[in-house]
Amino acid sequence: MTENTAADFPAWAKTKQTRIEEVLDEALPPDSRQPHRLHSAMRYSALGGGKRVRALLCYATAELCNTGIEVADAAAAAVELIHAYSLVHDDMPCMDDDDLRRGKPSCHKQYDDATALLVGDALQSLAFDVLSTPQLCTNANQQISMLNILAKAAGSTGMAGGQAIDLDSVGKALSQQALEDMHQLKTGALIQAAALLGAANGTLEQVSAVHIYAENIGLAFQVVDDILDTEADTATLGKTAGKDADSNKPTYVTILGLDVAKALADQLHETAIAALAPFGDRALRLRQLAGFITQRSF
Amino acid sequence: MTENTAADFPAWAKTKQTRIEEVLDEALPPDSRQPHRLHSAMRYSALGGGKRVRALLCYATAELCNTGIEVADAAAAAVELIHAYSLVHDDMPCMDDDDLRRGKPSCHKQYDDATALLVGDALQSLAFDVLSTPQLCTNANQQISMLNILAKAAGSTGMAGGQAIDLDSVGKALSQQALEDMHQLKTGALIQAAALLGAANGTLEQVSAVHIYAENIGLAFQVVDDILDTEADTATLGKTAGKDADSNKPTYVTILGLDVAKALADQLHETAIAALAPFGDRALRLRQLAGFITQRSF
Repeated sequence: MTENTAADFPAWAKTKQTRIEEVLDEALPPDSRQPHRLHSAMRYSALGGGKRVRALLCYATAELCNTGIEVADAAAAAVELIHAYSLVHDDMPCMDDDDLRRGKPSCHKQYDDATALLVGDALQSLAFDVLSTPQLCTNANQQISMLNILAKAAGSTGMAGGQAIDLDSVGKALSQQALEDMHQLKTGALIQAAALLGAANGTLEQVSAVHIYAENIGLAFQVVDDILDTEADTATLGKTAGKDADSNKPTYVTILGLDVAKALADQLHETAIAALAPFGDRALRLRQLAGFITQRSF
Repeated sequence: MTENTAADFPAWAKTKQTRIEEVLDEALPPDSRQPHRLHSAMRYSALGGGKRVRALLCYATAELCNTGIEVADAAAAAVELIHAYSLVHDDMPCMDDDDLRRGKPSCHKQYDDATALLVGDALQSLAFDVLSTPQLCTNANQQISMLNILAKAAGSTGMAGGQAIDLDSVGKALSQQALEDMHQLKTGALIQAAALLGAANGTLEQVSAVHIYAENIGLAFQVVDDILDTEADTATLGKTAGKDADSNKPTYVTILGLDVAKALADQLHETAIAALAPFGDRALRLRQLAGFITQRSF
């Protein structure tokens, strides 16, 4: 048995999930430090939960591209911090108004609205703090480029822009293309950033393949999310199920129907896998991750 | 008359205020770009107003330290974008719930709460986007260090942390020291960052002096804010006057009384000026700015 057998994917994923938890634990100020309540709420929101799909993607492309582990740690942490901030703000009363996140009360329920607002703000700053650690990369220009990728992925033409389009689409009949454009920003941009940051040391060919892979897997992630929102129950999801359909938000399931949505997820999965063909066994983790993302039930 | 005469300070400030407005106008996506409403609200919140004290500080230290104008532009824009985001979030109902900002309806009043939340989030991302422009600095390590300074100034041990302590202090009897610690984070951290980023090309002696100057002027800025909040009326301020005292927030005036607060502002001003002594005429703009900040009436 070599290290890279398909059977050991759960073990690999578990190792990386434990690792990113430790990296985040280290990056987040202790709640013994002033302001205590803010730091406590930041740790509550960013630690101890989630599939860490973005971190796994980052570690997997880092392995493919021989990106150093310290760079991969910082990149994975930065992306997870941006993701965590977006969930905290997304759950707030003026956005999705969701009381439940990862099976626990969401940040504004556990603390309060003002704290949740500041938690999201400070988690975003921390993401850029971590990724701008002096001397992180041997090549400082590469590090600046990573920071720029993350900033664009998070901003008004990335994730935050996707959220804005999402808000604006409630109750509207969107075309599949419009829905896809929205999701490419809302979830796709950060998933692509995770994969690209891990590929910091990659060749042009590798980075280009990672780009296609991430684009397709990011969209597949969202299609599966919509399918799960229809099929799963709240206990399994750890967040309120059926919420998007209830709130009259267009989803892949409402636009395409359940069967076509499932076929689309399969097709995106195949396209993602095909992009990895030139790399043979070196891309095993990314292939497994694609399966993990499209066949998940949570 | 040389360029650097005291009399031309208003002209210098006006030139820089116009310049930062143009830099920000260029950095902000046009509202013709999707998502239109978000981009329109970002521009509404970040353009066309304010004293631009942080940008002026950044340009003035850049002149003292021979930091290139493109670097100063990016640094000044990044700091102003962080400042603008903090105002948008600070005005939201779950925070200060203020309807007026710079004489106009605050962002959440003009648009809506969800949009204001995203505007703040996206303005913060844009700040890091602008400062991570590839090839901005000749020395890439210097640019990474600038990004790290900004991230720390904005985060939970900087501005956002100060906001959290501020929230927590409502209705409490703070000591002058506790109030000072809070303000050193809430407004001081970003003002110091503005001065330090402009000093990117400075010698050790220059950076060290800029640090002392900025620490004192940042605090003076807040003391004067509290004095103005007591003395000025809403029309002059462009925001709701008397708000802090009304909301039972401790201020320098409530803790020290008006006369002692005024004496403190004078003393901080003097300490800031004293730090600039070694630089003679080269620090004229910084001296003038210190006067501008402590003697303002708006």
